Amino acid sequence: MAGSGAFVELLEEDVYKYYFDGEWRKSASGKSVSIINPTTRKPQYKVQACTQEEVNKIMETSKVAQKAWAKTPLWKRAELLHRAAVLLKEHKNPIAECLVKEIAKPAKDAVTEVVRSGDLVSYCAEEGVRILGEGKFLVSDSFPGNDRNKLCLTSKIPLGIVLAIPPFNYPVNLAVSKIAPALIAGNSVVLKPPTQGAVAALHMVHCFHLAGFPKGLISCVTGKGSEIGDFLTMHPGVNCISFTGGDTGIAISKKAGMVPLQMELGGKDACIILEDADIDLAAANVVKGGFSYSGQRCTAVKVVLVMESVADALVEKVKAKVAKMTVGPPEENCDITPVVTESSANYIEGLVMDAKQKGATFCQEYKREGNLIWPLLLDHVRPDMRLAWEEPFGPVLPVIRITTVEEGIHHCNASNFGLQGCIFTRDINKAMMISDAMETGTVQINSAPARGPDHFPFQGLRDSGIGSQGITNSISMMTKVKSTVINLPTPSYTMG
Amino acid sequence: MAGSGAFVELLEEDVYKYYFDGEWRKSASGKSVSIINPTTRKPQYKVQACTQEEVNKIMETSKVAQKAWAKTPLWKRAELLHRAAVLLKEHKNPIAECLVKEIAKPAKDAVTEVVRSGDLVSYCAEEGVRILGEGKFLVSDSFPGNDRNKLCLTSKIPLGIVLAIPPFNYPVNLAVSKIAPALIAGNSVVLKPPTQGAVAALHMVHCFHLAGFPKGLISCVTGKGSEIGDFLTMHPGVNCISFTGGDTGIAISKKAGMVPLQMELGGKDACIILEDADIDLAAANVVKGGFSYSGQRCTAVKVVLVMESVADALVEKVKAKVAKMTVGPPEENCDITPVVTESSANYIEGLVMDAKQKGATFCQEYKREGNLIWPLLLDHVRPDMRLAWEEPFGPVLPVIRITTVEEGIHHCNASNFGLQGCIFTRDINKAMMISDAMETGTVQINSAPARGPDHFPFQGLRDSGIGSQGITNSISMMTKVKSTVINLPTPSYTMG
Amino acid sequence: MAGSGAFVELLEEDVYKYYFDGEWRKSASGKSVSIINPTTRKPQYKVQACTQEEVNKIMETSKVAQKAWAKTPLWKRAELLHRAAVLLKEHKNPIAECLVKEIAKPAKDAVTEVVRSGDLVSYCAEEGVRILGEGKFLVSDSFPGNDRNKLCLTSKIPLGIVLAIPPFNYPVNLAVSKIAPALIAGNSVVLKPPTQGAVAALHMVHCFHLAGFPKGLISCVTGKGSEIGDFLTMHPGVNCISFTGGDTGIAISKKAGMVPLQMELGGKDACIILEDADIDLAAANVVKGGFSYSGQRCTAVKVVLVMESVADALVEKVKAKVAKMTVGPPEENCDITPVVTESSANYIEGLVMDAKQKGATFCQEYKREGNLIWPLLLDHVRPDMRLAWEEPFGPVLPVIRITTVEEGIHHCNASNFGLQGCIFTRDINKAMMISDAMETGTVQINSAPARGPDHFPFQGLRDSGIGSQGITNSISMMTKVKSTVINLPTPSYTMG
Amino acid sequence: MAGSGAFVELLEEDVYKYYFDGEWRKSASGKSVSIINPTTRKPQYKVQACTQEEVNKIMETSKVAQKAWAKTPLWKRAELLHRAAVLLKEHKNPIAECLVKEIAKPAKDAVTEVVRSGDLVSYCAEEGVRILGEGKFLVSDSFPGNDRNKLCLTSKIPLGIVLAIPPFNYPVNLAVSKIAPALIAGNSVVLKPPTQGAVAALHMVHCFHLAGFPKGLISCVTGKGSEIGDFLTMHPGVNCISFTGGDTGIAISKKAGMVPLQMELGGKDACIILEDADIDLAAANVVKGGFSYSGQRCTAVKVVLVMESVADALVEKVKAKVAKMTVGPPEENCDITPVVTESSANYIEGLVMDAKQKGATFCQEYKREGNLIWPLLLDHVRPDMRLAWEEPFGPVLPVIRITTVEEGIHHCNASNFGLQGCIFTRDINKAMMISDAMETGTVQINSAPARGPDHFPFQGLRDSGIGSQGITNSISMMTKVKSTVINLPTPSYTMG
Repeated sequence: MAGSGAFVELLEEDVYKYYFDGEWRKSASGKSVSIINPTTRKPQYKVQACTQEEVNKIMETSKVAQKAWAKTPLWKRAELLHRAAVLLKEHKNPIAECLVKEIAKPAKDAVTEVVRSGDLVSYCAEEGVRILGEGKFLVSDSFPGNDRNKLCLTSKIPLGIVLAIPPFNYPVNLAVSKIAPALIAGNSVVLKPPTQGAVAALHMVHCFHLAGFPKGLISCVTGKGSEIGDFLTMHPGVNCISFTGGDTGIAISKKAGMVPLQMELGGKDACIILEDADIDLAAANVVKGGFSYSGQRCTAVKVVLVMESVADALVEKVKAKVAKMTVGPPEENCDITPVVTESSANYIEGLVMDAKQKGATFCQEYKREGNLIWPLLLDHVRPDMRLAWEEPFGPVLPVIRITTVEEGIHHCNASNFGLQGCIFTRDINKAMMISDAMETGTVQINSAPARGPDHFPFQGLRDSGIGSQGITNSISMMTKVKSTVINLPTPSYTMG
Repeated sequence: MAGSGAFVELLEEDVYKYYFDGEWRKSASGKSVSIINPTTRKPQYKVQACTQEEVNKIMETSKVAQKAWAKTPLWKRAELLHRAAVLLKEHKNPIAECLVKEIAKPAKDAVTEVVRSGDLVSYCAEEGVRILGEGKFLVSDSFPGNDRNKLCLTSKIPLGIVLAIPPFNYPVNLAVSKIAPALIAGNSVVLKPPTQGAVAALHMVHCFHLAGFPKGLISCVTGKGSEIGDFLTMHPGVNCISFTGGDTGIAISKKAGMVPLQMELGGKDACIILEDADIDLAAANVVKGGFSYSGQRCTAVKVVLVMESVADALVEKVKAKVAKMTVGPPEENCDITPVVTESSANYIEGLVMDAKQKGATFCQEYKREGNLIWPLLLDHVRPDMRLAWEEPFGPVLPVIRITTVEEGIHHCNASNFGLQGCIFTRDINKAMMISDAMETGTVQINSAPARGPDHFPFQGLRDSGIGSQGITNSISMMTKVKSTVINLPTPSYTMG
Repeated sequence: MAGSGAFVELLEEDVYKYYFDGEWRKSASGKSVSIINPTTRKPQYKVQACTQEEVNKIMETSKVAQKAWAKTPLWKRAELLHRAAVLLKEHKNPIAECLVKEIAKPAKDAVTEVVRSGDLVSYCAEEGVRILGEGKFLVSDSFPGNDRNKLCLTSKIPLGIVLAIPPFNYPVNLAVSKIAPALIAGNSVVLKPPTQGAVAALHMVHCFHLAGFPKGLISCVTGKGSEIGDFLTMHPGVNCISFTGGDTGIAISKKAGMVPLQMELGGKDACIILEDADIDLAAANVVKGGFSYSGQRCTAVKVVLVMESVADALVEKVKAKVAKMTVGPPEENCDITPVVTESSANYIEGLVMDAKQKGATFCQEYKREGNLIWPLLLDHVRPDMRLAWEEPFGPVLPVIRITTVEEGIHHCNASNFGLQGCIFTRDINKAMMISDAMETGTVQINSAPARGPDHFPFQGLRDSGIGSQGITNSISMMTKVKSTVINLPTPSYTMG
Repeated sequence: MAGSGAFVELLEEDVYKYYFDGEWRKSASGKSVSIINPTTRKPQYKVQACTQEEVNKIMETSKVAQKAWAKTPLWKRAELLHRAAVLLKEHKNPIAECLVKEIAKPAKDAVTEVVRSGDLVSYCAEEGVRILGEGKFLVSDSFPGNDRNKLCLTSKIPLGIVLAIPPFNYPVNLAVSKIAPALIAGNSVVLKPPTQGAVAALHMVHCFHLAGFPKGLISCVTGKGSEIGDFLTMHPGVNCISFTGGDTGIAISKKAGMVPLQMELGGKDACIILEDADIDLAAANVVKGGFSYSGQRCTAVKVVLVMESVADALVEKVKAKVAKMTVGPPEENCDITPVVTESSANYIEGLVMDAKQKGATFCQEYKREGNLIWPLLLDHVRPDMRLAWEEPFGPVLPVIRITTVEEGIHHCNASNFGLQGCIFTRDINKAMMISDAMETGTVQINSAPARGPDHFPFQGLRDSGIGSQGITNSISMMTKVKSTVINLPTPSYTMG
């Protein structure tokens, strides 16, 4: 159970501690931040409200720890990560419990998140051993006018301190997808978890603690955004920011200066369905893509662009599937669970009311109880409705009927977001050519958008982000090239 | 014109000289080999019948020249290749003329072969600058138990002397596709052109001569296979054999010992046509794939495997296109020209007669005049006919009707050959999955098999060859890894 | 001659035009900016003072041109770049003339800059053909729990509009090192040249114009920083900023938001000289590294850290070489020419006076006439002097005597800058281990720091920059990953 | 203990069984082969003398098993290899016991061999997941004249059945270095262990059996070379031969035809010692490199080429170290143990006697008891002695005194062998330039030759082999490229 057993030292009285210099500590502030359970809408947990002074100390310690860590053999770094992966899987239940209580994630999915996180950490360890163990050996005589007298060796070196800021919807998985690449690459990590999900993140961090990483290498700071938010992101000690979340990311990027950024800031993933599509397959993916975890996923299907001729058939099939969905508390593994906060529910309701007013067709009755919103498909949505462009991050899915493929592509490309998109067609030529035409980081052919498998590249265009993720790309992003050039007095050629 | 102008020094009396140590020379044998024009069936050219002694001298000189060449900066090697490419294109007409006369290649295609060869040489030059200018820089601490005290630098070094043996059907293009990678990689080259095509090859070699390559780096030896064939392939001076041709290759491979081999030995490329295929597209590709250069291409479509339900439609469309083909001399750019030798024509006729006897349906009447065979489509071919398995290398194309896809895949995979194959379908899933199931070096989706573009990998399974070609792979194949390990007294980590 | 012959259309009356939509134009502002010749200290040229409105139009046109350009085959893009490279070399003299007049670059070096720029453009074209023509093909069954039913194809796509801002010291070379990678990668380019060097840059741009690039793809805007500086760097149309220069870069980075940055902002390259060094070699490199182009190079040697035991010998040898240097106008190819502006000369003088006051040893008398400063070696410089840390960007070189290697490494790593560094030693172990310990983007063993050859990676740590340059890295930096995932209904394995 | 506990099913009466179709079996021949303990010179173990008929069955079963295995997800293949690695380490003692008894390997080294083998298997599993999960995605518009309408996906496919033939000196490690890459790449494996070492290999194979690999995927056949040697290597079912050993390899290569070969056939690794070398370091490496496992290593130092001026010092230091070596049975962990067979000992003695006769200086007295030969350093060896060129594979080390570096390089390059070499010098320039000049697969700077760490490339030039090993290269070597080309009806460009 959370805060007990192997995790007992995380909790004192009813407040979870923060993690610094290899120990769990109380903030000098004497204050705490409450975490509201989205289902009960009552306080569930409390975490430390850390101070700027504490952030400063974390940065100092992180820098020192990083220097020593960068001198640790790659295979030893990997070994520790493998240990952490095993511990994560061993302790999947208490961590998943936090996810259920903090973010109302259905219980089974919560367990899956933790297990998948363990796999990611292990895969990342081995990937790093290879990426970091191999540089290039370049010679000068490739370039016109040069002899072979300069031998250039390139290495990938750590950036220093990586500030990791994951979002509420995958507070464990999207934390380790930043932490593991940072660590294998020789960086230290300062984790600032989201408020909802903070306790799950603290438990996850404890698995790294138990794995035996050096003191100070990993820190986890909790607190109020108003107090330590900008202070963290603008801290001169930070050498890299890896952020997943919403608009805050754009604000961070404007203050970051010359700090390498890896940002993933949401999407409005379109699902284009052509006349020759397998409609059953498309409907199944619309439902899975649109309503999994109540639509609170970056890569959720957020707008369906379906050819008029097959729209009725598609909508019918989706409606039938929606009718079978269970709605209720995450503990009972309901398909649809409460959204993360009341303000989020209110925002979603605003989008729905706008669509209603402008004449969208409601395939189901709109229903809400507290943070719990029943799944809703809106047909005949038009570009003048907010739902055509905004990201509800809830179980509400607009359908726009199109008469040409170009219309669909245009809608997709006109969005501020450019994370993923998907296209349903049986036709190989259309699949490849429409995929080329869609201006998003990824295009899925005949499946809903998805972040994984975790070794695939993952990136967003326009306001959806900067940089590319996926295990391999994240490791590369958290390193920098350093080159050493051996200058010989006279040219020398390898003869063999 | 061949043997005149810039090429005048190649010819003395009526015999073309061989190329050795930067000069055009007559063989001490005093003998020559005649080349029969496939169209006139009369002697067209004569080349030197070189001796084993001359081969020995070539090998000695090649070794010395190679050592110096390997010490030439990469960009200078590339510069010379670019010059040769320009010269090839400048002299495309006399070289193409040889192709017309020696191998009855239609005049336009002959010019295209030379131009495309120039492009290949240039592309190869730049590719080599990059492949050879970049090795790996590996460190020891990737492997369990090791510190970072060993720094390994890997280089790609030349093999030494590359023996290049191209076939008659592309005596220029398939020669430069061996010569250019060999040279940019720092090797010397001994070229043994095919008898038909030898004079075109000598002209091509002269462009390299004019480009200013060092003496002895490139040699071109002509003569009788019985005298210098095995002598060349088993010569201890040879460090690599790159061969394109037929069964001879298997014999060579059995005697080659530890010499790296790059072999491409023909194919029986299947064209599988599914029910949902674009039949017009398929028919056009069957005709182009099956009858271009009278079917004398490794990657010609050599058996059509068409679903029964669309077979009639396909056969009709192919017949209509065949009816429009022109048949006659290469000088007039006829679609179908005489096959390369009388023995080849006889062999093709043998396959046709076997099919006739066993009941194949002739879509056209069988017609032959000398080496000229009219294009022939044979429907209802069955696995008991030789044409189902053997490679005619002529304008004769068998159609086998299938009732399941599996039948088609099975026929394709049961062949001794495994060069390429193609599949016509609109369905993306079938395209990818059947492509996975076909056991050939390459599978083309919705197009006839083809060797190019020349930077794509090109390889055959089973008896179709060993190694992979394409510019990049050929360069790699003609090098070997050499590594240098710097051992430090204590571990050292790059800190950045 | 500049502004005449092939360049006549650039000039109207005495003002050089700016380049927009394939044409040379006058600004609607009716105003111009004067360029002062550093040698004569009189106005040499005038350029248009463009308006914000004109910048807006440039951005619009650039976006449209980029979309079409991204649909141009790679080899065609390369062909145009090759043409531009040839034109640059053909017109090296008038361009070099501008460099002499605008930035007082010695005449021969000015010509070299242009020729080297042509080589860079050509190399970049071929590099891009390869980098951009090759993505990854990833399969899902690498990751635990997945079958092989997802096929991921990754491409490198253009970013859009690249804003290129080169510095005064290499206004041609450091412009094309941004323009060529941007173009081959499918981007459009907006060039903002430095005031000193603007006219050379305009001439260079004209070579691209003559090469036949599509209208609107390349623009070159001139004007006052106060009017269009921030307006350009914060323009929402900009998708990438590639900047080389000084502190301005840091300011730009703080406003850039989610725009990928490639920044190179100067250095304080240390030259560490050990007791076992070849002192002649070291002295020669100190002089070349410290005084070439009067020290106005990012990678100039900017501080010498020499072991006490060999310091006297080194200083003597350097002094002897300095004594032989010629000082005077660039037209006469003097070694030392006037620094770029009076304010720059004043800044240098400030550093010298500070060192004087604090007791540094002057190896030569300090001498200045206008912008011309005589080469000056300052011995016994100590960490409390500004010259120990600040970048003079002039012919003034401090020597700090050290008693241990660690002292040298520490000084190097304590700098805000981290561009390059060099180490002189004969010992292989020391060379590799000190190189590992120096925290700079590149370490040169036994040679002065240097940017080239241009295919080597080039990058700075800390305030020296973000991202990595060199042809290959620049192309990669100016692209983004896009992935397409083909989802199959059932797993499929390639059997071969 | 060998043949008991987990290994009990391997043994019936006193004969070890062979492994086929997932079971341990007795040969139908009813015959066995005896293995002589090199120390006791008495029969230690017996293994089955398999028949050609049994080989045929193995090949059939292997082919079937391979087809199914190639359809197994990569991560599952890796999982099984990880399990085998764990089992190898768990059972290190009984396996090491066999090594002690069969090949007289010192007990500690025997354990190390098994443990290192486990590490290799695990590393190989993860390497393969990456190498095999990533192909290239090439587009057609890189090549002149082409649009972007051809998309080429390249995969690495298994070769089929890999015949693995390790040598006696590392019968476990050099078996798994073939088995693990073969398996992860989707191949099946037929192992033919050396006679000495066969029982260790059988125990090793049992760990793969216990790990749960599918039936028929791995086979291990024992028997007489005269009966099944050529039969195996020329078997038409074999798709790849990976051989480590001696001259037999050359014979195999001459019969292999178009079967890809990976061969490592011994070396005569030279150790060049310059005047500025660290003589203590050099001496320590000469002793370790020359006498470890009694010199029975491919990468043993087999000839010392020392500059005359430091030769006396070196020889003195080596002599002093040799004097401290222990000589005796492997069970007591003696430094020098009996060589593997009596014929080997006789061969070594022949080389020693030749050197004696021709006037070499014996630094120790020559002493032999049975297969046990006392360590012997021979100074003043000259090129006319057999020891200057032949490989003793015993504790006998020749020293040749040289007066110039070129002499050393020349001796190294004149050898038929070209496996590794090493150079001792402090000078970075000499180190790199002599390394370039030495024509061997690897050059070690300031350390004795060595095969590992196992991810480094490992290869021999000339008679030392064909292909490159090391984990990464071995995996690549055991695959072939297959490409799929998607042909689009019109060009399509990824716009992003």
